[in-house]
Amino acid sequence: MSDSVYKVIELVGSSPGSWEEAARNAVEKAGESLKNLRIAEINKLDMRVENGKVAAFRARVNLSFKYGE
Amino acid sequence: MSDSVYKVIELVGSSPGSWEEAARNAVEKAGESLKNLRIAEINKLDMRVENGKVAAFRARVNLSFKYGE
Amino acid sequence: MSDSVYKVIELVGSSPGSWEEAARNAVEKAGESLKNLRIAEINKLDMRVENGKVAAFRARVNLSFKYGE
Amino acid sequence: MSDSVYKVIELVGSSPGSWEEAARNAVEKAGESLKNLRIAEINKLDMRVENGKVAAFRARVNLSFKYGE
Amino acid sequence: MSDSVYKVIELVGSSPGSWEEAARNAVEKAGESLKNLRIAEINKLDMRVENGKVAAFRARVNLSFKYGE
Amino acid sequence: MSDSVYKVIELVGSSPGSWEEAARNAVEKAGESLKNLRIAEINKLDMRVENGKVAAFRARVNLSFKYGE
Amino acid sequence: MSDSVYKVIELVGSSPGSWEEAARNAVEKAGESLKNLRIAEINKLDMRVENGKVAAFRARVNLSFKYGE
Amino acid sequence: MSDSVYKVIELVGSSPGSWEEAARNAVEKAGESLKNLRIAEINKLDMRVENGKVAAFRARVNLSFKYGE
Amino acid sequence: MSDSVYKVIELVGSSPGSWEEAARNAVEKAGESLKNLRIAEINKLDMRVENGKVAAFRARVNLSFKYGE
Amino acid sequence: MSDSVYKVIELVGSSPGSWEEAARNAVEKAGESLKNLRIAEINKLDMRVENGKVAAFRARVNLSFKYGE
Amino acid sequence: MSDSVYKVIELVGSSPGSWEEAARNAVEKAGESLKNLRIAEINKLDMRVENGKVAAFRARVNLSFKYGE
Amino acid sequence: MSDSVYKVIELVGSSPGSWEEAARNAVEKAGESLKNLRIAEINKLDMRVENGKVAAFRARVNLSFKYGE
Repeated sequence: MSDSVYKVIELVGSSPGSWEEAARNAVEKAGESLKNLRIAEINKLDMRVENGKVAAFRARVNLSFKYGE
Repeated sequence: MSDSVYKVIELVGSSPGSWEEAARNAVEKAGESLKNLRIAEINKLDMRVENGKVAAFRARVNLSFKYGE
Repeated sequence: MSDSVYKVIELVGSSPGSWEEAARNAVEKAGESLKNLRIAEINKLDMRVENGKVAAFRARVNLSFKYGE
Repeated sequence: MSDSVYKVIELVGSSPGSWEEAARNAVEKAGESLKNLRIAEINKLDMRVENGKVAAFRARVNLSFKYGE
Repeated sequence: MSDSVYKVIELVGSSPGSWEEAARNAVEKAGESLKNLRIAEINKLDMRVENGKVAAFRARVNLSFKYGE
Repeated sequence: MSDSVYKVIELVGSSPGSWEEAARNAVEKAGESLKNLRIAEINKLDMRVENGKVAAFRARVNLSFKYGE
Repeated sequence: MSDSVYKVIELVGSSPGSWEEAARNAVEKAGESLKNLRIAEINKLDMRVENGKVAAFRARVNLSFKYGE
Repeated sequence: MSDSVYKVIELVGSSPGSWEEAARNAVEKAGESLKNLRIAEINKLDMRVENGKVAAFRARVNLSFKYGE
Repeated sequence: MSDSVYKVIELVGSSPGSWEEAARNAVEKAGESLKNLRIAEINKLDMRVENGKVAAFRARVNLSFKYGE
Repeated sequence: MSDSVYKVIELVGSSPGSWEEAARNAVEKAGESLKNLRIAEINKLDMRVENGKVAAFRARVNLSFKYGE
Repeated sequence: MSDSVYKVIELVGSSPGSWEEAARNAVEKAGESLKNLRIAEINKLDMRVENGKVAAFRARVNLSFKYGE
Repeated sequence: MSDSVYKVIELVGSSPGSWEEAARNAVEKAGESLKNLRIAEINKLDMRVENGKVAAFRARVNLSFKYGE
């Protein structure tokens, strides 16, 4: 099992409320089709701004999962 | 319009409650005087600590807006 | 006093709820034994994922405190 | 709509003439199969050299598009 | 003269044709109001994509000029 | 041929013996389904530790191959 | 007070004698017009060379001060 | 258990034979006194050279373990 | 042949017209005296500015070629 | 001896006069309790500013010494 | 002697077997003509892939030696 | 003249007294054989430590000069 190969993909989640929700959205969307997700690393946080207000929090996330199965 | 020039400035917002509030404070303070804010990127997150407790969450933010108008 | 020497250590805090709580856990755990904590910088944010859901938010934190006293 | 999840992929385009053409080739190849491409960020520029001459300009590009639809 | 202080600002120029034009737009816009521009360093290159085509090349530029005069 | 577009993916290989074996596992797993692999760059090396011993060497690898064929 | 917003600007100071003087020149020039300067971080050190000798030491400095007051 | 705090320390291991042995030496030396080591990340690899030959392979390693127990 | 050793040098090319020309100048100048140039990677792009106009595009390039032959 | 394990710690020294004094303070404070210090690398230089003047130069230093003896 | 000046060059070694051999090849090739090599730092590891197999391990190495003697 | 090609080399200077002297030693050693030195950028500062004291300040410097003349 220690010789398994994992793939890392990068997703961007978004939420009007928080970076935690933004990141959770990315993880759960991925979880619908990918098995064995393990670690999700944050690469970048930013915000979309509209009319001088924060319209959305966004989190760019690296997700790893078992490859080729 | 695609030839507009944008300026990027760096602000540090602060909040006793969360990094989202810290970043929002920076964005909304900038929004009082700057028009056409678009994207706000997080450069750094840290905390001010007092007496062994977190006294404030701080977010360092890059903000872009139309330049020279 | 300006000639004091500070030490920087790196801790990883964890929380089921938010990165703020994760970072706060690291700071307060350190505050039990270390005096004069000042600034806590975030080096990395990630999440532990179980069954396609976020099981824990984790924050990797650099903490500085007076050295050798 | 602000809760959409985006995926980021990395492509390398190539052109004998310019980095703009190299990057454009990568974007347009991706556009054949991916919808809702938004932003394409340059990660790296290099050149393939043959017989002491530049044989090709290459651009490594991060492309984001809607995920899971 | 070697003790002059310079300020560095960051601008984002844009052009439908090339990154050179995008960067030149940023420099010339700044040159309308700032004197003694010297060096302009590229921090980032990206593209805005519309309908699977490159709609604009953008260059993020650090510009330095004499400060406080 | 110089106008081909390549895609870059990131895999994590693992081996009880060495980082070379870990990286080779990632490359050969990818080679089962992807054609025209060229260069594999190491992004990160780490180890999984169990009971104070190294249980596995892991190599995070960027692999490029022809896209869209 | 913890909700104040700070702005970060980047200056380049110069001195024939040392990087400390170069950085001090940048800080004191800024101090003529900006209140509440707190921390000045060094981003880059370099030297201007003339006729094979060091003609000036230069320090690129990030300065933060209260924004919008 | 998800709220445990981990500490990260940095060690440099060395070996005449390989980076794997160098890193393993660092991990096992740490394992003599620290419990619950989990992940060991490589920060840097280098070599000590003597008389034009490689005298030792060295690995700089970040090790995390349970803090404050 | 796979055991050949390559050397990497860094050159800065310059052109009034484009970064492609700037980089090509560096490559072709090197090609006059160095054999077996393969890859030329861009490390940095900048511009020299005179009187508020772009006077030259400059490209900093890493070039590799066979060493010691 | 080539198999010794070293530990790397990070200290911040401070001085009203220079970064050399700041770094020396950190090294000598560490030298009071640690044996076999070898190399001290600078990670960051900054300044504390008070009333528009430089109040202290600070140097963040990585120090390595023999571990576990 | 502490005022000696060293030069740093960058070489790429290659080996069908391991990164240690690849790096050793670069060091020993340099040792044929350069005296007083001290430290060799790894900047990058990669692999050349042929027919879905690893054809060569490559190590990019920074080597320092006495300059101008 | 704007089409001249420059080469960048990396030297390490050393001094018992200061980083300025260390860097100046590197520049002046290079100036003995190289013409048209322009800019010298600091890549890294460190110290050699002996018996718990700073034995030498060292500066790693990138120097550019006209290539191929």
